[in-house]
Amino acid sequence: MESPLADRGAAPKQGFEGAPDAWLVFDPEVAEGARDLAAGADVFVLTWLHRARRDVLAVHPRDDPRNPETGVFSTRSQDRPNPIGLHRVRVAAVDGLRVLVRDLEAFDGTPIVDVKPVLREEADRR
Amino acid sequence: MESPLADRGAAPKQGFEGAPDAWLVFDPEVAEGARDLAAGADVFVLTWLHRARRDVLAVHPRDDPRNPETGVFSTRSQDRPNPIGLHRVRVAAVDGLRVLVRDLEAFDGTPIVDVKPVLREEADRR
Repeated sequence: MESPLADRGAAPKQGFEGAPDAWLVFDPEVAEGARDLAAGADVFVLTWLHRARRDVLAVHPRDDPRNPETGVFSTRSQDRPNPIGLHRVRVAAVDGLRVLVRDLEAFDGTPIVDVKPVLREEADRR
Repeated sequence: MESPLADRGAAPKQGFEGAPDAWLVFDPEVAEGARDLAAGADVFVLTWLHRARRDVLAVHPRDDPRNPETGVFSTRSQDRPNPIGLHRVRVAAVDGLRVLVRDLEAFDGTPIVDVKPVLREEADRR
């Protein structure tokens, strides 16, 4: 992923909190998998949060000590045993192997693990 | 994960299509991470689809040849380069390290990679 966010400190906690646009850059060997991504598509991007700590099991949500310590599986902390990020974003443009998405809070160089469409039933459920 | 679904052929395509309840069974060493999961919570469960094919880049969605072949990053096919399953479910009950969830379409023995809360902003967005 290419993003103007240089590091973890610069990234907002969630994409809807004012994250910048980012480019998903696909390897040529998986290009066929990305061939139907198009502007307007709502997708989940799964990332590998390579700088996260994997030995953390409880955190103060949003790094705020006033929030009670909470098990990481009930938080969206980057620090967790398997640090996979889940980002719901909209595709803004496609340029060959490069896909521009809106409001993605991961920082520059974060590896992309998978991209999946959001299903209508997921979007509707409360 | 413990599920009455014995194999891939028995599993529905998506959880909202009539999947059974399943138990998420946490390893003792990550128990602290699961301590705040409670009945009623809406969570994403991420799984490793260990029987998927990783060399597939395009599929006919829903295994229906009438659907045009589509790049896997625009489908929810199990077969994809990094076969991580994404399942939105509701916690029904907690029994120590075992967490019962509703409508999970993965089959028995599928490894769990991560569990995350659904954020209100994700549930609301269309």
